[in-house]
Amino acid sequence: MTEQTASDPTSKSAPVLSLVEEAIGADLIAAEQVLATELDSTNPYVSDILQHVTRFRGKRLRPMLLLLTADASGGIRAAHHTLAAVVEMIHLATLVHDDVLDEASTRRHVATINARWNNETSVLFGDYLFTHSFHLASSLETTHACRAIGRATNIVCEGELSQIKERGNLDLSEEAYFKIIDGKTAELTALCGYLGAHYAQADSRVVTAMERYGRQLGLAFQIADDVLDLVGNERKTGKSLGSDLQKQKLTLPLIRLLAKATDVDGHALRQLLLHPDETTREKLQPYLDRSDAMMYAHQRALQLAQDARQQLEAVAPSRSRRILAEIAEFAVQRTF
Amino acid sequence: MTEQTASDPTSKSAPVLSLVEEAIGADLIAAEQVLATELDSTNPYVSDILQHVTRFRGKRLRPMLLLLTADASGGIRAAHHTLAAVVEMIHLATLVHDDVLDEASTRRHVATINARWNNETSVLFGDYLFTHSFHLASSLETTHACRAIGRATNIVCEGELSQIKERGNLDLSEEAYFKIIDGKTAELTALCGYLGAHYAQADSRVVTAMERYGRQLGLAFQIADDVLDLVGNERKTGKSLGSDLQKQKLTLPLIRLLAKATDVDGHALRQLLLHPDETTREKLQPYLDRSDAMMYAHQRALQLAQDARQQLEAVAPSRSRRILAEIAEFAVQRTF
Repeated sequence: MTEQTASDPTSKSAPVLSLVEEAIGADLIAAEQVLATELDSTNPYVSDILQHVTRFRGKRLRPMLLLLTADASGGIRAAHHTLAAVVEMIHLATLVHDDVLDEASTRRHVATINARWNNETSVLFGDYLFTHSFHLASSLETTHACRAIGRATNIVCEGELSQIKERGNLDLSEEAYFKIIDGKTAELTALCGYLGAHYAQADSRVVTAMERYGRQLGLAFQIADDVLDLVGNERKTGKSLGSDLQKQKLTLPLIRLLAKATDVDGHALRQLLLHPDETTREKLQPYLDRSDAMMYAHQRALQLAQDARQQLEAVAPSRSRRILAEIAEFAVQRTF
Repeated sequence: MTEQTASDPTSKSAPVLSLVEEAIGADLIAAEQVLATELDSTNPYVSDILQHVTRFRGKRLRPMLLLLTADASGGIRAAHHTLAAVVEMIHLATLVHDDVLDEASTRRHVATINARWNNETSVLFGDYLFTHSFHLASSLETTHACRAIGRATNIVCEGELSQIKERGNLDLSEEAYFKIIDGKTAELTALCGYLGAHYAQADSRVVTAMERYGRQLGLAFQIADDVLDLVGNERKTGKSLGSDLQKQKLTLPLIRLLAKATDVDGHALRQLLLHPDETTREKLQPYLDRSDAMMYAHQRALQLAQDARQQLEAVAPSRSRRILAEIAEFAVQRTF
């Protein structure tokens, strides 16, 4: 559900951010105002939590994708500001619930809601964000967005549930892995592309292409994150890594590593993965070094990013199209 | 969010159930089919959980209220079956999340999802039910229901959050208590009355009356539950009681008890309530016996139930109207 800071193409080091600012800065602010108005509460407890949450929000990747695809597909309208706020609220809801699931104590160097308040408050506040996102979506003229958003969030939840189910399954297939990340991550980025183009009144060919752009980008992001979790530099990425190992989540590099390992290595790897501790990540390195696992995962991410970029040919060249292409490139460049 | 079994007017001992069956049995089945179709999943993990959840579902009070108010206000239509499924799914979502919050291990004698699977699965499955409820609501023709449902669920979450915030506050006012239960319980029953009447194309006077019926009924239920939690018989009610005390939730009888206590009693009571253990409920009994607290709470519930019944005069006499009146009566009769 959560691409992580390090592979976020919009992190501070990305020059693409200033281009985004130029292209859709005013629209991002407009979307932010819609979000703030929807979530405004006279209840001081709720407004305290809200204020706190804004401190660990990222760089609004999803609103950005939605607004850029809108701009590239025919132009940004008022509905897009509402929809950009909706996808950001859904993303926030999933972050808040993820932090409960992970028993995380910090996010982006800020205390999580469960750490600062408690788990109950996190669960309920995540629900509060979900219900407000749907409420906001229903402020549009027709049920079209509600249906698309309802359908996509159903799939996100199913993807997350599958991921929980498959924890500890060392025989997870690549196909099953892709199905999980397609649900938990790519469905929401695909929705951004879809809503961006659809509400720009683009023709169905463009809508399909923008949706696919979002989907392939989401998949590429997630693979890049999964790679970073194994081999990234904690100091550089600014987050604690190896969490997939601790949670026994099998990711693409590990699936490949296990598939190509000799019998002897395979046995040793399984023992490592089934009994994770803080040394597991380090102990995996020699196995990874002598395998093609990282390169294989990187290649898959590159292919997906390339496919994403190709989709952009459905729309005429524009500044926003160029930025979307750069986002796709950047997402995978940052893998290593 | 959850009226509890004992004060559920539709529990097995209620003769009103067979009347409901006669009046709207086929519609309840139709709503159930809509729910099953919406939640149907090809994912065996999800369908396992679903099947499990149906084992601890209650007697579908909210679909019943929605369908009975519809019938009493102009007639049940196809949209009502959809809406009845929606309110039931929202209620189920809140139950699943409540069980995480309460660390409950059983509900209606069946293992909760967090006990049978884990907390992560409960949080995500509750989300899954929420997103599906909104998705289902968006299958109607206009955004009207989505807006009403979004607004109501926003308020439910805010009520629950306020309740968490006020835990341990022995100075909670009656007004603040009523605001909490109005959000966490009565908002959803009010929504049932509203949607029932509105989609039966009743005039606005009737819609307002049916919404108020639902609200006052919800408040009366919640007070009856709060009373039972203090003085109910565990064997008779079939659930463990005293949980409000353990969670330091101040309810109407306790607010009254504290307000009317002598200084000496007040001091002793506060010590009891601030340091709850399994003997707290028993130790409270003498204080309750020599106060008007239980009677006071009972009277408030009676007044609310009476107000609910009065709202029914907005519609012509009918079998469904009679049943709605009985439900209001029964809810409070079961207080002691």
